[in-house]
Amino acid sequence: MDIRQESLKKHYEWDGKIEVISRVPINTKEDLSLAYTPGVAEPCMEINKDYEKSFELTRRNNLVAVVTDGTAVLGLGDIGPEAGMPVMEGKCSLFKEFADVDAFPICVRSKDVDEIAKTIYLISGSFGGINLEDIAAPRCFEIERKLKEMCDIPVFHDDQHGTAVIVAAALLNALKVVKKNIGEVKVVISGAGSAGIAIAKHIMNIGVKNVTLCNSKGIISKGLSTNNPEQELMAQVTNPDNLTGKLADAMKGADVFLGVSAPNIVSQDMIKSMAKDPIVFAMANPTPEIMPDLAKQAGAAVVGTGRSDFPNQINNVLCFPGMFRGALDCRASEINEEMKVAASYALAELVSDDELSAEYIIPDAIDKRVGKAVAEAVVKAARETGVARL
Amino acid sequence: MDIRQESLKKHYEWDGKIEVISRVPINTKEDLSLAYTPGVAEPCMEINKDYEKSFELTRRNNLVAVVTDGTAVLGLGDIGPEAGMPVMEGKCSLFKEFADVDAFPICVRSKDVDEIAKTIYLISGSFGGINLEDIAAPRCFEIERKLKEMCDIPVFHDDQHGTAVIVAAALLNALKVVKKNIGEVKVVISGAGSAGIAIAKHIMNIGVKNVTLCNSKGIISKGLSTNNPEQELMAQVTNPDNLTGKLADAMKGADVFLGVSAPNIVSQDMIKSMAKDPIVFAMANPTPEIMPDLAKQAGAAVVGTGRSDFPNQINNVLCFPGMFRGALDCRASEINEEMKVAASYALAELVSDDELSAEYIIPDAIDKRVGKAVAEAVVKAARETGVARL
Repeated sequence: MDIRQESLKKHYEWDGKIEVISRVPINTKEDLSLAYTPGVAEPCMEINKDYEKSFELTRRNNLVAVVTDGTAVLGLGDIGPEAGMPVMEGKCSLFKEFADVDAFPICVRSKDVDEIAKTIYLISGSFGGINLEDIAAPRCFEIERKLKEMCDIPVFHDDQHGTAVIVAAALLNALKVVKKNIGEVKVVISGAGSAGIAIAKHIMNIGVKNVTLCNSKGIISKGLSTNNPEQELMAQVTNPDNLTGKLADAMKGADVFLGVSAPNIVSQDMIKSMAKDPIVFAMANPTPEIMPDLAKQAGAAVVGTGRSDFPNQINNVLCFPGMFRGALDCRASEINEEMKVAASYALAELVSDDELSAEYIIPDAIDKRVGKAVAEAVVKAARETGVARL
Repeated sequence: MDIRQESLKKHYEWDGKIEVISRVPINTKEDLSLAYTPGVAEPCMEINKDYEKSFELTRRNNLVAVVTDGTAVLGLGDIGPEAGMPVMEGKCSLFKEFADVDAFPICVRSKDVDEIAKTIYLISGSFGGINLEDIAAPRCFEIERKLKEMCDIPVFHDDQHGTAVIVAAALLNALKVVKKNIGEVKVVISGAGSAGIAIAKHIMNIGVKNVTLCNSKGIISKGLSTNNPEQELMAQVTNPDNLTGKLADAMKGADVFLGVSAPNIVSQDMIKSMAKDPIVFAMANPTPEIMPDLAKQAGAAVVGTGRSDFPNQINNVLCFPGMFRGALDCRASEINEEMKVAASYALAELVSDDELSAEYIIPDAIDKRVGKAVAEAVVKAARETGVARL
């Protein structure tokens, strides 16, 4: 039985991957009076007097909403809100298992930016953080921006920022392996949707100066009629050599290829056209932009994918549990750039110099040290930048 | 320490009364591949092909949203959405402890009927049922009506229908104690908000013919300028004797007093003015309309309150866990009148003829037989009325 069929079978057996339990026993009348009426009136009035107490007197302090509209679920596209829920529940399981964060899946039956943002804002008093998930670009940018303005809790679109944090961590270590300087490398990103753009921004935040974005139409440059507003903004700060043409043109002489795009679109010749010892993260899932063995044959020095059956898996679970663990621990009002940068360095540093090799640049997806290490770095950065409330 | 101060202390210790856990272990790469990517794509596509599968492949089948806007929390009034959350969390604990229903608390930051209804509808694909809670009248009626039209899952305003189900059960048994016929008694209800009106409707559904509603202004009759639309509708079907005046006028010669109103508004003289062997449920909380000892002294044959420190506690926990357990078990598309009536009879029947007395007309709030008995009756009624999907 292949993994998808086995997963389906398991899902029928599991009867849901999350469960809501009571943290208080209710066996006596006194239990009832303390956890419910009439005793509960007092914590209610405490919060009424001081809104901040809602983080102490309810589960809000450990609770993240995992929200989707079902429009960009895995590589499956717009499959509908309810159909996205097995992914959201899976994510909630990972939040709990990897960082003891309570996470609850919410699907929103709308594709309207304002309606989605409003809906999430209106229920945000129930949560301590919002993890946006699998919402199609460019809508996801605007929803995230609006929500960040409205909410007093962290809002984080994992497909953008989680991916970016991990790619940056892997890149930091891969550059050590090939002994190149982050300020001097040329990076080509294939995919100019939510993940590609977030990766571009984030690796520039950690020191990359030369980034070129490509999508299925070719190299993104200023003023293209096919640019969406987010791509046009990126065109202002990327592609410093004013390249034109296709992905293959951008890759000539590049040191790093980061793929978040489509299967089998990179040939061995394209790898051969890159600079010496190229780094290739071919993260399209389940089929990468180029298979690792082909990339290596063509000269790639370090190869990463999104898959668990090859070395160097770029897996989102390395970031989001620890990121929110940290944000909740210090009751951060937002997740800012400094916190994401700190998370990338914390992740990279989990691989010691002794362990570091072309086959091991990033911790394993199930390495349970990761959540704690990321969380600690995130808390520190939140405090240093004044967004921590604890 | 009084119960409210002790409850506050406990709430600081508890760190939330609910918790979201993972039902699947994630320890190996294979676990990750089955619960999350890439395996999870298959259950997603199953739901994409057949929406009904969302009830089998996610936790939706056991999950109820407990929703408030924070405008009528306990007897505290409009204390705000976040301040209502300790009550909502408490309710979620009770759902789990009494009927193994997973319940999740949601507060909505709005007082607009359409906005609240829309918000809940838009996230309803995440749940198998909606329990509305502590929303002020008359807004609660319209929110419930709109949601019932929009949603394909049960919507139940517990303050209305839960209370009504239990009051009716207690009334059925109290009438046995005093040997009166349900079709012949005169019932006066003090309180014409959400609970009072729902009680009136529901006891008429189980056979009471003569009901008179009163509010703080006096007896509700047709055409009063102070009637809200819901009260005007009730005026058409209640008060068959066309009474006018105050609560005291309505109570003269009545067999049953049901109070969901305000403390200490009923005097011993008012009890003495009632028919022989009157039934008095004084359910204002924490201070009843008349204290049980005073009511008994004045001749009340059966007395109930909302309090746990007197016999015959009319406590909502007797209904909502079993009601939703039943609705979820048969995947009911709604909770209809027949299901509520069945719940009342099931509750009443848990008190055997041998046990029945003026001091024991309704099961104890922590009687764990209740959830199952109510659920079974609800499933049967749902199937008989064609709203069960299983």
